[in-house]
Amino acid sequence: MATSDRGSSIIPKTVNPDIQEERNAATFNVEDFALWWHGGEENLKRKRYVESSVFADIDENKTVASIQSLSHDEIYAAAMEDALALAGKLRKLQKELNPGGKDIWPGLFSGPELWGAMPGGNPFTVHFSMLVDAIRNQGTDEQFEKFGKRAENLEICAAFAQTELGHGTFLRGLQTRADFDSKTDEFVLNTPTITAYKFWPGGLGHSANYSLVMANLYIDNKPKGVAMFMVPIRDEETHMPLPGIDIGDVGKKLGFYGVNNGYLGMKNVRIPRTNMLMRHAQVEADGTFIQSPAAALGYFSMVFGRCWISANNTTMLAIAATIATRYSAVRRQGSINPKQPEVKIMDYVTQQMKLFPEIATCIADRLAALKLRQLYHQTERDIKKGKYDGLGEIHALSCAMKVMCTSDSAAGIERLRLACGGHGYLASSNLSNLYSTATAGCTYEGENTVLLLQVGRFLMKSAQQVMAGKPLAPTASYLAKIKMDQWSGSWENIVEALECATANKTHQALKNIAARMEAGQTQGEAANNTGIELTQAAELYGRSFIAANFLQEVTGINAKTRSPALNKVLENILELYLVKAALDNMNNIFRIVKITDEDVNSLQASLEKSLKSMRPNAVAICDGFDFPDRNLLSTLGCFDGNVYERIFEEAKNCSLNKEPVPRVFHTHLKPFMKSKM
Amino acid sequence: MATSDRGSSIIPKTVNPDIQEERNAATFNVEDFALWWHGGEENLKRKRYVESSVFADIDENKTVASIQSLSHDEIYAAAMEDALALAGKLRKLQKELNPGGKDIWPGLFSGPELWGAMPGGNPFTVHFSMLVDAIRNQGTDEQFEKFGKRAENLEICAAFAQTELGHGTFLRGLQTRADFDSKTDEFVLNTPTITAYKFWPGGLGHSANYSLVMANLYIDNKPKGVAMFMVPIRDEETHMPLPGIDIGDVGKKLGFYGVNNGYLGMKNVRIPRTNMLMRHAQVEADGTFIQSPAAALGYFSMVFGRCWISANNTTMLAIAATIATRYSAVRRQGSINPKQPEVKIMDYVTQQMKLFPEIATCIADRLAALKLRQLYHQTERDIKKGKYDGLGEIHALSCAMKVMCTSDSAAGIERLRLACGGHGYLASSNLSNLYSTATAGCTYEGENTVLLLQVGRFLMKSAQQVMAGKPLAPTASYLAKIKMDQWSGSWENIVEALECATANKTHQALKNIAARMEAGQTQGEAANNTGIELTQAAELYGRSFIAANFLQEVTGINAKTRSPALNKVLENILELYLVKAALDNMNNIFRIVKITDEDVNSLQASLEKSLKSMRPNAVAICDGFDFPDRNLLSTLGCFDGNVYERIFEEAKNCSLNKEPVPRVFHTHLKPFMKSKM
Repeated sequence: MATSDRGSSIIPKTVNPDIQEERNAATFNVEDFALWWHGGEENLKRKRYVESSVFADIDENKTVASIQSLSHDEIYAAAMEDALALAGKLRKLQKELNPGGKDIWPGLFSGPELWGAMPGGNPFTVHFSMLVDAIRNQGTDEQFEKFGKRAENLEICAAFAQTELGHGTFLRGLQTRADFDSKTDEFVLNTPTITAYKFWPGGLGHSANYSLVMANLYIDNKPKGVAMFMVPIRDEETHMPLPGIDIGDVGKKLGFYGVNNGYLGMKNVRIPRTNMLMRHAQVEADGTFIQSPAAALGYFSMVFGRCWISANNTTMLAIAATIATRYSAVRRQGSINPKQPEVKIMDYVTQQMKLFPEIATCIADRLAALKLRQLYHQTERDIKKGKYDGLGEIHALSCAMKVMCTSDSAAGIERLRLACGGHGYLASSNLSNLYSTATAGCTYEGENTVLLLQVGRFLMKSAQQVMAGKPLAPTASYLAKIKMDQWSGSWENIVEALECATANKTHQALKNIAARMEAGQTQGEAANNTGIELTQAAELYGRSFIAANFLQEVTGINAKTRSPALNKVLENILELYLVKAALDNMNNIFRIVKITDEDVNSLQASLEKSLKSMRPNAVAICDGFDFPDRNLLSTLGCFDGNVYERIFEEAKNCSLNKEPVPRVFHTHLKPFMKSKM
Repeated sequence: MATSDRGSSIIPKTVNPDIQEERNAATFNVEDFALWWHGGEENLKRKRYVESSVFADIDENKTVASIQSLSHDEIYAAAMEDALALAGKLRKLQKELNPGGKDIWPGLFSGPELWGAMPGGNPFTVHFSMLVDAIRNQGTDEQFEKFGKRAENLEICAAFAQTELGHGTFLRGLQTRADFDSKTDEFVLNTPTITAYKFWPGGLGHSANYSLVMANLYIDNKPKGVAMFMVPIRDEETHMPLPGIDIGDVGKKLGFYGVNNGYLGMKNVRIPRTNMLMRHAQVEADGTFIQSPAAALGYFSMVFGRCWISANNTTMLAIAATIATRYSAVRRQGSINPKQPEVKIMDYVTQQMKLFPEIATCIADRLAALKLRQLYHQTERDIKKGKYDGLGEIHALSCAMKVMCTSDSAAGIERLRLACGGHGYLASSNLSNLYSTATAGCTYEGENTVLLLQVGRFLMKSAQQVMAGKPLAPTASYLAKIKMDQWSGSWENIVEALECATANKTHQALKNIAARMEAGQTQGEAANNTGIELTQAAELYGRSFIAANFLQEVTGINAKTRSPALNKVLENILELYLVKAALDNMNNIFRIVKITDEDVNSLQASLEKSLKSMRPNAVAICDGFDFPDRNLLSTLGCFDGNVYERIFEEAKNCSLNKEPVPRVFHTHLKPFMKSKM
């Protein structure tokens, strides 16, 4: 990695003995963990090669704190420059390592794996994470040839414009309309009111020259439902907004500083008929409308988006866990036995309780996200064969997983930030940046509560299938069992309890909906009034999936591919995850099985025991995630543990410190202090 | 309020009918609520007069989004200018309304009540919230005359420098030292290492010319404990750092952008002996050290700080609740009955569940914070009479309240931000700004977990008093009762259950500590290993205090001073608060009393019923908090409900939108897109 060119750095070249001591004490081989986590030797090797290539000549002065100290305009320019520099590097690496493939370029451009190259964010994230895929899945092959390939190669840049100022998740409510004009064989696009303006799409403000616009299709003024339209919005040569286009940046946000989220108004913007994506539904030249064979197909791009978000958010949590865990091995504060030296804060059980469950959660969530991706690809293959019956389940599961992974990671990162005390509040810790990115995932691509209610609907349908004696989707196969025979506290027993609690809550919700309908409420009203229990059931469904999958990965056939020492560590992490899940959900579990006071005490003892066992391995586990320092972007989390020097150096470099006395002292402060009013 | 000078505003001058409809439907008189909330007619009238005076000529272009779009340096300058402008206004108002008093200047300068005047933050917050008070309480009367009065009048500006780069809450660990030199009658101050540098004090970077420095006092190289020293750090005329002083800003943070948190290194900095604050401990000219009569007195300033933080954080939560509730009355999204018009999102029970419990929490926490302040003043009076025995309880209670109010408000604001969907992510919503401010309270003035462990120690002592048959402090008087006879679900019964759960958890923790010591652990080790249960007990103690106090305020003698309609609303809010607290703590409650499935269902039904009752009054309750628009600083929360126009206008005004094509298009984006690599 390039050395800092900030002049005489005070950062030691040696590893802090406090963190070295941790590594020496680990009970397993870190490389074994990294190999498992990254899916084998070839993947890990390539990952490291890509990282070292990308980060080799990175400008170390571009830190999170230095970028965030710039003005909004400057941050955008920096983000654009950095993103394009990375794009260039990845294109080269793709040619070098796997010519013709897409795994590196654009495969690695949008995810968090190389964020270290773009501390201001990436204005092209949506372009690559959703747009290209949407053209591929919703457009015909010819359309992909025409638009998709250019987009994939970044010859054009397109935003994905669905959300409007007044309309989010509820697609049917979109006000943007596309009227078919059969005379000219064109669509005419309009955003008739302020609330119809597209608002929020990433990169839309000043980066994109095209936008894929989600609009209500009208033929002869009759609504035909929502469709997608490829709309040129800026001149490809001059980048000036095209006629009828009103466009700009939405302004400063909690995070995503350089991502250039934008707004878009359209007034009689005309595009050729063939710019509507027509893989599923079609409009013919004479105005004939051909319905999509399965309405749900239109939503399938979103399933992919949710898989992608789920996996990415677990990476963010892993980054934060690495930062906070390493910091906790170096930070000393207070003593456990009076008059003895100050201890590492990681020696406090309360601190362990902040760190280790997050490590466990990011592993459990990650494994479930990978499983979800497998199921997505399976469904994709099924669809190609004309088999659509798995769509309902993958939709529900991807909703649940998106909710769990985003809310777990956001809450977890925030707990980890707080676990770093004041220094976690510094931009230079990168923890607030990670948080603002992770929490955005709770809202975009389907607001989490809305998604939970959709999962709730899937559960209601499934519960009705139970009562009708019909077969259940695999991930809901346990729904028939609403009481448990016995509590033992074993791993299998805890997973069963979570599943049973899901079933019980589902059953309860169904019963309450039925009772409300009986009392005269419509189905919609009854479901709304049962919303709290429905969302609780949906969350339990997600948690059950994650827990069962984690149990399977650790204790199932894959265990044979790992060393006994690594398996022991994973079992420890699994134990912590399950015991904590049981305690967290005790308010539901005690309703489905008899739980004694002794049972709870025993869970608490297991919790404390698993924290204790994990203590010597915590730093090594995070080392096993294998993040290079540059991708952590944190003064607190570096491998060498030289935390204080980095914080101090970053502070010294703050732009405000260039002059000893700020101008505002002379213009305002001194006159005030001398005024003696 | 001044009209916007942003050219032709698109914001209607009328009230959005969707929000007007809410006001028409309220079952109580908003003014009654406002009078109660603000403590009577005189207070409310004066509050409104001060607000309208302060905000009359405010620059409406200085919004949260516009300020946050500036560079770090520019934000600091803006914050300084705005803070001094406010200071000038308040000094004038003080003379006008109550000459010689301090209730307006500096009384209203640092709290959130007038934040609308300082969207970039206030670099003088700590100066007024802690520093002046610390000089008053820790300094002699002469010292207050010499330093305190000048500080109070902002003739000098001083930081409160306790935290070091390597040391936070653990005071004894501070590395900064002050050695007494009897030859010159001076102290010599040093920060011997990087980790000894003072780090974090607000206003220290470039604003303060003095600093109250917490350091370990040495006489003849013998440690005498921690003391406070008034240290000049910048020349009063030139503002240049004085010899031996190394000072600067710590750089960009999650929030507090303009607050100028700084670092301070000292090398052989000499100050007169009389600059040590000597109300309690003293150093005489010959080097004789006189111990403080009660060690705990040194911490009493911190109790005041915690009272202040507790109350302020409830105000932040009330601001956020007002913003999100008003937005939810205007935002329409989706429908409850298919094919019917889109409904207000506040009609979704899941949305009510995000909003109303936060309204209830900010009211409950606020009332408890006011009660805490009363108890603080009582203790202050006792101390003056030489009566120190209430110190232990006020210390514990203020710790618990600081934890509850900061964590409740931070979590609550974040839930409210998420309840506003994507628009809550805009800086212009002000919700992220409120969050970053509220969450900082979880760390400063005693990190929350550290404080909970101190409360835990108080509870352990109290439990031992129970066993010894000794009397208990009033707020812990219930600790003897660890099981409940019967669950009824009444308000009193729920409060009793929370108290009993506190007692049970306390008892459990004490038992586990004893068992661990029996097994050979030291007391420190045993307490550390019982840390999870200790912090849980401490949180329950805080929650019990808040719940009991809320019950007392609503149903006790004060009810007679309020109208029946207002009392009914408050009872509704109380019911929601208690029922939710019972459900949230069910994992503890089912251990102390028999709870049937029917009991839980009945609580769930009460929860849903109380949300439903609160639905028509939610906007009116928030109106009753009586925040002027300018203090909400939010595009989402204005009284008139014209949300979309405000969001849109704020976006249009974003600095990035001044030019249609950014420079970076020509320098980077176009060359890349055309490169056809």
